[in-house]
Parts: sequence; C-alpha cells; structure tokens
Amino acid sequence: MILQPVVNIAEICARKGVKQVVLSPGSRCAPLTIAFARHPKLSVRTVSDERAAAFIALGMALTTGKPTVLICTSGTAALNYAPAVAEAFFQQVPLLVLTADRPPEWIDQLDGQTIRQQHVFGQHIKRSYTFPVDLQHPDAVWQSERTVSEALNEAAAFPAGPVHINVPLREPFYPAPGEALEYNAKVKVIEEEPQAYGLTEMQALRLQQEILKYKRILMLAGHGQRDAELLKRIKAFADTTGAVVVGDIISNVHELPNAVRHQDAIFANTDQALLRQLQPDLLITFGKSIISKALKLYLRKNKPQAHWHLQPAGAVADTFQSLTKIIRCTPYSFFAGMAGSIKNDVAFVQAWKKASGATTKFLQQFTTEAAFGELAVVARVLQLLPKHSNLHLANSMSVRYANIVGLQAEKRVEVFANRGTSGIDGSTSTTVGCALTSSGITTLLTGDLAFFYDRNGLWHNYLPGNLRIVLLNNHAGGIFRIIDGPKQQPELAPYFETHQALDAENTARDFGLGYTAVRSLQELEQALPSFFSEKAGAGILEVFTDSPANAEAFEQYRMAVRALPLG
Amino acid sequence: MILQPVVNIAEICARKGVKQVVLSPGSRCAPLTIAFARHPKLSVRTVSDERAAAFIALGMALTTGKPTVLICTSGTAALNYAPAVAEAFFQQVPLLVLTADRPPEWIDQLDGQTIRQQHVFGQHIKRSYTFPVDLQHPDAVWQSERTVSEALNEAAAFPAGPVHINVPLREPFYPAPGEALEYNAKVKVIEEEPQAYGLTEMQALRLQQEILKYKRILMLAGHGQRDAELLKRIKAFADTTGAVVVGDIISNVHELPNAVRHQDAIFANTDQALLRQLQPDLLITFGKSIISKALKLYLRKNKPQAHWHLQPAGAVADTFQSLTKIIRCTPYSFFAGMAGSIKNDVAFVQAWKKASGATTKFLQQFTTEAAFGELAVVARVLQLLPKHSNLHLANSMSVRYANIVGLQAEKRVEVFANRGTSGIDGSTSTTVGCALTSSGITTLLTGDLAFFYDRNGLWHNYLPGNLRIVLLNNHAGGIFRIIDGPKQQPELAPYFETHQALDAENTARDFGLGYTAVRSLQELEQALPSFFSEKAGAGILEVFTDSPANAEAFEQYRMAVRALPLG
Repeated sequence: MILQPVVNIAEICARKGVKQVVLSPGSRCAPLTIAFARHPKLSVRTVSDERAAAFIALGMALTTGKPTVLICTSGTAALNYAPAVAEAFFQQVPLLVLTADRPPEWIDQLDGQTIRQQHVFGQHIKRSYTFPVDLQHPDAVWQSERTVSEALNEAAAFPAGPVHINVPLREPFYPAPGEALEYNAKVKVIEEEPQAYGLTEMQALRLQQEILKYKRILMLAGHGQRDAELLKRIKAFADTTGAVVVGDIISNVHELPNAVRHQDAIFANTDQALLRQLQPDLLITFGKSIISKALKLYLRKNKPQAHWHLQPAGAVADTFQSLTKIIRCTPYSFFAGMAGSIKNDVAFVQAWKKASGATTKFLQQFTTEAAFGELAVVARVLQLLPKHSNLHLANSMSVRYANIVGLQAEKRVEVFANRGTSGIDGSTSTTVGCALTSSGITTLLTGDLAFFYDRNGLWHNYLPGNLRIVLLNNHAGGIFRIIDGPKQQPELAPYFETHQALDAENTARDFGLGYTAVRSLQELEQALPSFFSEKAGAGILEVFTDSPANAEAFEQYRMAVRALPLG
Repeated sequence: MILQPVVNIAEICARKGVKQVVLSPGSRCAPLTIAFARHPKLSVRTVSDERAAAFIALGMALTTGKPTVLICTSGTAALNYAPAVAEAFFQQVPLLVLTADRPPEWIDQLDGQTIRQQHVFGQHIKRSYTFPVDLQHPDAVWQSERTVSEALNEAAAFPAGPVHINVPLREPFYPAPGEALEYNAKVKVIEEEPQAYGLTEMQALRLQQEILKYKRILMLAGHGQRDAELLKRIKAFADTTGAVVVGDIISNVHELPNAVRHQDAIFANTDQALLRQLQPDLLITFGKSIISKALKLYLRKNKPQAHWHLQPAGAVADTFQSLTKIIRCTPYSFFAGMAGSIKNDVAFVQAWKKASGATTKFLQQFTTEAAFGELAVVARVLQLLPKHSNLHLANSMSVRYANIVGLQAEKRVEVFANRGTSGIDGSTSTTVGCALTSSGITTLLTGDLAFFYDRNGLWHNYLPGNLRIVLLNNHAGGIFRIIDGPKQQPELAPYFETHQALDAENTARDFGLGYTAVRSLQELEQALPSFFSEKAGAGILEVFTDSPANAEAFEQYRMAVRALPLG
C-alpha cells in the first residue's frame, strides 16, 4: 500500500492547477510515480535522463505558466536536475521538484542510491521542504498537506521559481496488485491570492511629478515572456510621451513596430559624438537580463542621470552600475500610472529613430548580400519563421546572431532562451517541453555543441510533431573564433573551439526525426518552406558551415557596423 | 596577461603529482585553460559535456590513484559536475575541481553564465575553497598558493575525495599574442606526509586477546580497489586462522581462490537451519558498500555477537545494524597485527566451504545450461574476459548479474563500479577515463539505459583503443521487471521499465567505434574472442535480449537457488 499522504501530494497538485508531470523511473520513487500516473487530471511523461527531464519540465512551465512537477528517485538523480533548477531559479520559472529519498535513518549507511538530499539544490532553489516520514500523528499529516500547498504557492509567487520537497519513503513502495488508490476529496488545500503589486494613487502622483524632470527617457526591456497586455501599455506610454523602447530579441517587445531592436549594432558604432545623442537622462528598465554587450558597456560608460528599475519584489541587479531607484510594482501598473505625464525631447527621439532606421536598413542589406555563413543563415531562418510560432534560441552564438538580426513585428513570434544561466546544457530539452505544451510550430535554433550536449532531450517516447530544429553545425564552438582573446592563442583549436566530429544524421535516424542537410543559401531557401510546413512533422534542418569562414563574415559585419553612418 | 598566481595553480598541481587534467571549454576559465594546457608535465584533454568530463576524471583518478584536475567555466558547468563529484565523494576518489567564476562584485547582476558557485557542491565535497580575487597584497598571494596545496592534500587524505576551488577571475583572460607564461620554480608547495593509520603494539596485543573470544570469524570486504599487498595479508590471516573471507565482485578479493563470492546465491536459500550454521560470532568488515541484498538482510537478521569495522578515519556506516567496535587502522595493519592469534571453529569453516562450493558448482552449471538471456550472457563475458584487464560494471542490473556470476581468481581482473552513489549516470565516461589511463583492455558491461544516458562519455577526440563496451540491450530498464513490486503494477511498462527504442549502431558510427550485434549465445561466443583481442580496437558488442525473457530466466534462477542443497 502507498501511504495516503503520499497519494494526497498528487491530488493537491491537481487541485492547485498543476497539469504537467515529468518523471524519471526509479524504485524509491514508486509511490510518487503511481500516485501521479493514476491521477485522472495529470499528464505524466517519463524521461530517463534527469538532466533532460528537468529542462523539458522547464519548457512546459514556460508555455503553460503553471508549475511543472518533476519526480525522481533517490541518489544522483536529483543532482542531474541541478542545471535546469538553477536555470529555472534565475529565469524565474515555477517548478515543483519531488525527490524520493531513503528515510533519515538510512542516510550515510552505504545503501545504494543514497546521497544527502536535504537542501541539495543549495542556493538555486526558492525553498526546500522535507516531507514528514512518520505519518501516524495527525499533526504530521497536517504538515504533509500544508507543505505541498506552501511549496506550490511559493513556486508561483513573484519572482516565480523552483521549489523542492524531499520525500523520504520507507517500504512498501507498491500497492497490492489490483489495489486502487483513493484521491481524497477532502484533502487540505491552501490557496494564495497573489499580491497585485500595483502602484497606489499617491505613488503614481509622486512619480508623475518626479518624471517631469526628464526629457530623454529610454525604456529598456530585459528578458521576459510575451505579454500582450503589457505590450499595449508600453505602446500607449511610448506613443503619448515619445519615450524610446529598446529590447533584445529575448525581451519579446519586437511586436511593437517602433521598438528599437538593433542596439547591438548601434552601440558597436565608433562615432562617439553621435552615440552621445542617444544618452538618456532617465533609464527605465524592467524584466531580466540583457544580451547586447555593446549596450551594456555603453550605458555603464554613459550613465543616465537616473535609472529606475521596475520590479515587484526580490533582489535587484544593478546591471548598468547606474541604478538610482527601485520601484516595487509591475511594469504594467507603472506604465498605466505614468501615461501621458511627460513629453520626450524631440532631438533625442529623432536620434534614436535615425540610428534604428539606419541599422535596420543596413542589416537587411548586409545579411541579404552576405556570403553563406551563420549570420546570413540566421537572417533567412528568422525571415521564414511561421507566424505565431515559438522560437527557442540556444546559447551561445545562436541567441547572439538572432539578436543581431532581430525579429519582424508582424510575425508575432514568441522567443524563449535559457538566459537565466546562459548555459548550453538544456536548450533542446527546453524546446521539446515548449513544443509538447503548445500547438504552434516550435523551432529551436542551435549550434552543434549545444545540440549534441543535450541530445538526450530527444531520448523519450513523446517527440511532438510541431518540433523543428535548425542546427548550425560548424563542428566546433565557433564563438571562440569570434570573440577577442582566444582567437590569438595557440590553444584556440584544441582547447577553446574544440573540434567535434558529429553531424545529426544518425541522431535523426535514432529518434525518427525528418532530416535535411543544406550547404548553401540556395539550398537553405529551398528547404525552409517545406521544413516549416505543419505537415512536415518533427525534423532537423542541419546547416553545415565553416567556422573560420563564419568568423571572417562576422568580422566583416563588425567592421561595417562600426563605421555605419547613423545620423 | 594572466595573473601569476593563476599560472602557479598549474605549477603547484604538477609539483604535487597531478598528471591528468580534464577541461571543458569556456571563456571565463581561459586563464586556467592556458596555464594548464601549456604546462609541460600535464596531460590536458577537452570534453565538452561537463557531466561526462567529471566522470572521465573520476575514472582517471581510479586507475592512477592521483587527483585528476577538472576545469570548467562559470555558470551551470559546475552543476553538471555534481553527479560525478557526489560519486567521487562517496566512492572516496580524489578530484580537484577548479571552477572559474565571475568576480564577487558581478554575482547576481544578471550577467551571463553566473550562478552562486561558492559551496556549489553542498554536502558532497570534502572541502570548498575560494581563490583570492585581489592579488596585490603579498598575503593574498601566500593564500593563493597555500590554498592549492591544502586542497590537494585534503583530496588525498583518507578518506580521499573531491575538493573544490572556486576561482573568480576578472578580465583580461588571455596573454598577449605570443606572450609566454612563466612557471615559477620557487612557488610555495606544502607537502603532506600521510597518517600511517597503523595499530600500536599495545592495541594489537589487546585486540589479539579480545579476538580469542570468537571462533566463528567472518571477514567481509566491501567495495574497494585491487590491493595486492592487502590481499596477501588477508590470505595469510585466513590461512592461519581459518577465518572465512567473503566479498562481492566490487571488493576485488576474488583473486583469493578461497574467497566466498556467491553470497548472493547462498543467502537466497530458504534452508534456515543450514543458514544458521553460517552465522558468525565475530564479523570483521572493511571497505565500502556491499551489493548483495540477500547478505545484508541475512546479517541484519542474524547478528553476530560482535562486529568490528576497520576504518582509518571518517564517519562509519552501520550497514548491518550490528556494529560494536570501530578500529581506526588500515585493514592491512589490522590483519598484519592479528595473524596467527586464533583458530576458527572447523564446523563453521566447513559449512561455508560447502555452501560456497555448492553454489559455485550450481552457478557454473546453471549459466552454462541456461537459455539465451542476460544472466547467461554475463557469465560468458566474464569467462572470456582477457587476463589482467579492467572491468567496469554499470548500474544497475549489470553489476548485479556480474556479482551473481562472480570472477575467477586466476583472471586477475580489476573491477570498478560507481557504487558510491550507484547512479546510472556516468558508467561509460568513468570507463573511458579508466581506459585512457591504463594499458590493459578496459571493458564496460552496461545496460541500454545506463549506456545511452551517458552517451556523451564518447563525445570527444580521445577514444582509446583499449576500450570495449558490452551493451546488454533489452530496450528498457529491465530491473523493474525483475524486482518485486513494480512487476505487478499496471504502470510497469510505461512508467518503470520505460521502453526505449535506441540501439547502438548509429552511436558506433557517430564515434567511429567497431560494432558487432549478437542475438544468441552462439553468436556471442563466436564474437567475444576477436572483440577482446588487442588489435580489435575500441568497439561496442551489442547483445540484444528480451526483457520479459530475461525476467523469466532470472525467476528460474531465483527458484533454483532458493532450493539448492548447500549442506
């Protein structure tokens, strides 16, 4: 038999809106496995590699907005979750991690699959709980139920993130053959009405007064998911005040036609006089990280008079070393409260408009005319992406290339990227998780190192038909040939770039994925429309490029962009 | 330029006997990469998947007995080391983990590849150090050098294990083009003369007196590496006293012809009267974990009067719930100090001899006559292993099967297995690490789940010609069909056993490995001699079996062994 409080974990999760469960097989976790697998309202999938399982769960939580439940057995299984748990922590994605454990009396007694699981996720978890092991006392049962509600409430509260319940389990692990489980209709559930994080009228009035001091307002959106309501508010604020909106591709503000998206190219420019015209007096930021290193360096050097950061709760990063005021509200409520109160300086707005227009035009032309290479390839792929589709950008060159190229507003493509930790370790799995829980075409743009690193993201029985993988294979970590530093060292090829011999044809065969290889822009343009068609099914489009040639093309881009007339 | 104290890390490692370095590429770790790669006395290899890299380093440390150095960049790279670090911690294998980090002022500032790396390995590391980031003050330089010596001394001290130095690094990361590094001949090194952990004469005399109380002495060897000197001492003690030696396959005592190796079969017997004859009055244990669950359960139920555990230092597990005395010395010094002082009861010795002889004979016959299935396959593979070779046994069924079958004494095969945590996550990589640092044929015996889980252990440019992989592919986690519990549940196939479709042919093609598939005992017997020949080169021998048929064969074994006449 399985203890009723363990069965209740599944029931409480279902009541609190959990839908998706990813488990990895094991014996110690059998009571959890069975309790979740039999629950009529939960979708449970099995993924053997826990590292991939956890990133798949992350992808699901990204598209559904609900915590995904992860279940694993005792031992190193939990440690294999750690990269995805850290990514979820910094990307602020809700996960409930349930790790089965030996009971406390058997820890450190040389039994198999036994490590020290309490607080195993260290500083990369919102909170860790221990499920009671002795459940005779009614207070222990109360604790067990309360813990699950608390954990799910904590996972969802701003900033969302992963929480962990370690569940020590004694035998027996299995119900008797034929024995039914009972999902307790009266199980205790604690709901949480979330904090609204609005501005009070008083606060709004005070800030409306304060903002009048500034005439060169720049709004900078960090990493964040697509939020149609917020986009409307930002647009209204920008339209009435003239404030400039800037956002990397991972900020998902590219649906705003006027949003500046080529800041990486703009701030690579060497015309200091012109760049000074773009310096804001008030920088308003919201969201998470920024990709564009050129923009970061520019703002750190050319600090605004004031930098307001909008963040409902939690520690605030001073990304540009310019932070002067933290405003504890949602960006939505801020822009709603501020609308119409100011009018930006026309010269400032015009300077941004010109710089943005010039780089957009330049990039369009440059990528169209560029020889076959990764930058040109990424431009074609982004152009031909299906409308209303999802795009996951792997680290590290894929997301950089895509950020340089930018997305057209009318595509309505939602962009995902694991920029919480910027690891190359889970992009494929995360994309699979997104694809499994969304209906649109879901495309991964990835390099060969990231792709083969996380090949086990494809190793399960659920590959969805809407998954598309565009693999830029240069047989190496091409970034090291592009960034300054390693390219001048004798260690470049063996110890930085690290040649790897794989191509994806065998992988596609292994997992029953469609496979197309292309070696020219012409082949690529020919392949993309059918590759992206709905009826094509899950597939890999492998684009073979040459790492030194990519580096050379990128250098040409850098040279051109430095000297681009922006004014 | 690279700071001299960072260059000195490589020099101190080389001076203190480090030979092997495994690094994973990254930008933040560039100063470490270059300092280690250029050092003339260090062998540096690059492995892109940090999870695999760390298990490869573990395998190298197992065969060399010296700490392997691991180097990775900042971010989740370190988290991908965690499974191997935990295995090294519990298996007591020395590793020095160097993780590059952002400097402290940039932590939690939304920069890429930045997590909270201090103490990132939690409770699964012997000690964690932080390398000084500001190195202007001479005391900081002293600290930097001292830290490396301290860490290596700590890694090697009993019980050996992993240590971690987090190395925060500010730019610049690279020497100027053409700039040479200088390895400082005067760098500070602290040697450590290790504790001998011998018995004093007084202690030996006292224990010689005390042991006279016992006449039914059983020596039980836990997980441990081959130690020829210790084996001689054990043999001498056993020969003169009649004490019985029992050891699982992972204890590496199978070279002693009289060592009992079929305890898993013996204690599966249902003849309680006979089993009582095997009950020791004094149990002497040494080494780490035990595989045989039947033996564990027997000893927990039939407790000896006294249980002495020999362990130089560290917390001691009470594996059989029978521990009465911890003796702080090496097993070598204990058996040297005790030899000749007692004489075991003849009936006890005979009972063990008979039980061992009967099970050996039975297993020989049973596995010879058994139909094609995993047990019969493992028996053939162990019979035909090359002499003086290495054998790595993956979790979970591979090591169990091999432990049932046992190894012949004259083979002199050294057995390795990741039984510190008993995970399926790193067996392939660990074997690759062993093979890279030993000259003999190094064979991995693995199931399909463990093999594909850790496929990235093969993803690098160093696959050694002495590597052999025997892959038992039943397309599932066959153990769940064998152990009691899950096999009676409707969730067996989808959520426990978890069918997986891969076979290894594409993998062999991907990595340029030889490949042979067999589907019968006849094919297996034909294939093994050439597969194991030195000139064959690295290869995979994939044995396709059927999970339900394996389970049935195993059930037949269990039935037969229960009723086997042992007396």
